[in-house]
Amino acid sequence: MHVLVTGAAGMIGRKLVDRLARDRSLNGQAIDKLTLLDIVPAQMPLSVQAIIKTADLSSPGAAEEVIATRPDVIFHLAGIVSGEAETDFDKGYRVNLDGTRNLLEAIRMIGDGYKPKVIYTSSIAVFGAPFPESIPDDFHLTPLTSYGAQKVIGETLLADYTRRGFLSGVGIRLPGITVRPGKPNKAASGFYSGIIREPLAGREAMLPVADDTTNTHASPRAAAGFLVHGASLRPEQLGPRINLTMPGVCCTVGEQIAALRRVAGDRVAARIRREPDEFIMRIVAGWPSRFDATRARELGFTAENSFDEIIRVHIEDDLAGDFVR
Amino acid sequence: MHVLVTGAAGMIGRKLVDRLARDRSLNGQAIDKLTLLDIVPAQMPLSVQAIIKTADLSSPGAAEEVIATRPDVIFHLAGIVSGEAETDFDKGYRVNLDGTRNLLEAIRMIGDGYKPKVIYTSSIAVFGAPFPESIPDDFHLTPLTSYGAQKVIGETLLADYTRRGFLSGVGIRLPGITVRPGKPNKAASGFYSGIIREPLAGREAMLPVADDTTNTHASPRAAAGFLVHGASLRPEQLGPRINLTMPGVCCTVGEQIAALRRVAGDRVAARIRREPDEFIMRIVAGWPSRFDATRARELGFTAENSFDEIIRVHIEDDLAGDFVR
Repeated sequence: MHVLVTGAAGMIGRKLVDRLARDRSLNGQAIDKLTLLDIVPAQMPLSVQAIIKTADLSSPGAAEEVIATRPDVIFHLAGIVSGEAETDFDKGYRVNLDGTRNLLEAIRMIGDGYKPKVIYTSSIAVFGAPFPESIPDDFHLTPLTSYGAQKVIGETLLADYTRRGFLSGVGIRLPGITVRPGKPNKAASGFYSGIIREPLAGREAMLPVADDTTNTHASPRAAAGFLVHGASLRPEQLGPRINLTMPGVCCTVGEQIAALRRVAGDRVAARIRREPDEFIMRIVAGWPSRFDATRARELGFTAENSFDEIIRVHIEDDLAGDFVR
Repeated sequence: MHVLVTGAAGMIGRKLVDRLARDRSLNGQAIDKLTLLDIVPAQMPLSVQAIIKTADLSSPGAAEEVIATRPDVIFHLAGIVSGEAETDFDKGYRVNLDGTRNLLEAIRMIGDGYKPKVIYTSSIAVFGAPFPESIPDDFHLTPLTSYGAQKVIGETLLADYTRRGFLSGVGIRLPGITVRPGKPNKAASGFYSGIIREPLAGREAMLPVADDTTNTHASPRAAAGFLVHGASLRPEQLGPRINLTMPGVCCTVGEQIAALRRVAGDRVAARIRREPDEFIMRIVAGWPSRFDATRARELGFTAENSFDEIIRVHIEDDLAGDFVR
């Protein structure tokens, strides 16, 4: 089986590639070819030989070239993030919309019965406030960012190309991915990971929002798991509604901190400094916080059961089992 | 005020142009320039001088050329219909998606504070079965046709370009438009108009579905009214959710026929011949039949109050007040 991962150099891309390289198989079939595509060279996984390609899917011919190698399963993660899509309107539409459309078109243009599985990473940014207490699976899509709009369009194209029989798609709407490894970034959502990652590394973290701020989280490991599970679903299980809101742990920032205290102790939790930031509070207030995710759960998607578990996954996967006490 | 109508040669385009030409004003401002664009020359309205342009918005440069004339209000109706978008995949995406995106991009590229109103004709084809008893305003968009997918994408682009301040958009999801004047066509939905129009013209009409088949209808006059009313709404009334499901008369085919009997008599209604067609029944079963349209009603959009009224509008507007008894 030939598996292609686009956006393979990104954080979730790397987690997915590690998982695929460890499993060495997908849906019970051996992975005998793994192509990693990104605009910068993706890291070679430890345990398998992969083909590393650098290309921008929004450039003419780039999608055709990689699709000519006829991957059986395509994990399409490539794209620019929310903040950049908002500050650079042209780039957001070029990369996130045209890049995705080019990929789907390249598949359609093969035209000899080639019909790969396409697992598309979407986002809860497809939703826009105001929200009900918990967002049902059949809630409308009214994004309040260009990134969210591009994800709605990607989902809609994926569903139509699937319905027409050109490919077999599933859209995975990721919740907040926590704990993100690496350095603090400027994303407004950065504190959700920062208040766990930084204290565990012995550093102080700033909390810009109130303790009752609520969000739904899943670990990077769970995100890779969503994508792998998405690849296993049969068209008859999915029906025509192929874009799915993923489950996660819904909790307040206060509950996140309590979990950190349970897992890592008072000294670690004491490294969080409360520094209210009106600007970030306003942005976060417009984000969805809770989802039913009924269909995804029924289809067998699973996330962590508690925020304690999310912290333990971070310690295991990104800190080699240890932290600064 | 300069008003541009794209798709001005189509049925709803003609009804809208007639209305604008009769009113000679929009939102209390005189229309001093009216541009009618379509791929074929639109008909010159009787009472005003209009500029007739033929262009395909999906062709390079076409949108830029018409937008360079800086219309204040743009009614964007241009597009190919559901059946054609399904049989010709390429043409559907080229005309309905690229044509719309080109128009929005041409507006954005002016870039000197130019910010026209854009009234976009969308469709209830954005929804896909299965449906609740009545579709609420916050129901998700899972189209089951390429046409519906293209309308979802058009709505999403319109909302994002509006949010970013490039234009001031409103999307008008039209219900079934009945009674369509003119010749019978091959559209699966053609019978909804055919069973009224043909008997009133003294001809026999075929009814391919059961009498309890339910649909929501508004007249072509009401459709033109939706668009004109859409142009009058201020951004602060609309908020970020600018795509609206329009109201209409929800009734069964049996109720349509009973209305025809009341309005035109038994002899006219007797010209309907029941000829069940499994193929058409199956298609129609996948279409939405009833909508809440709560927000649109609250925003002042109005349709007819009964199917009797819809028939009378047809007799007045398309049959000069008379019919074959």
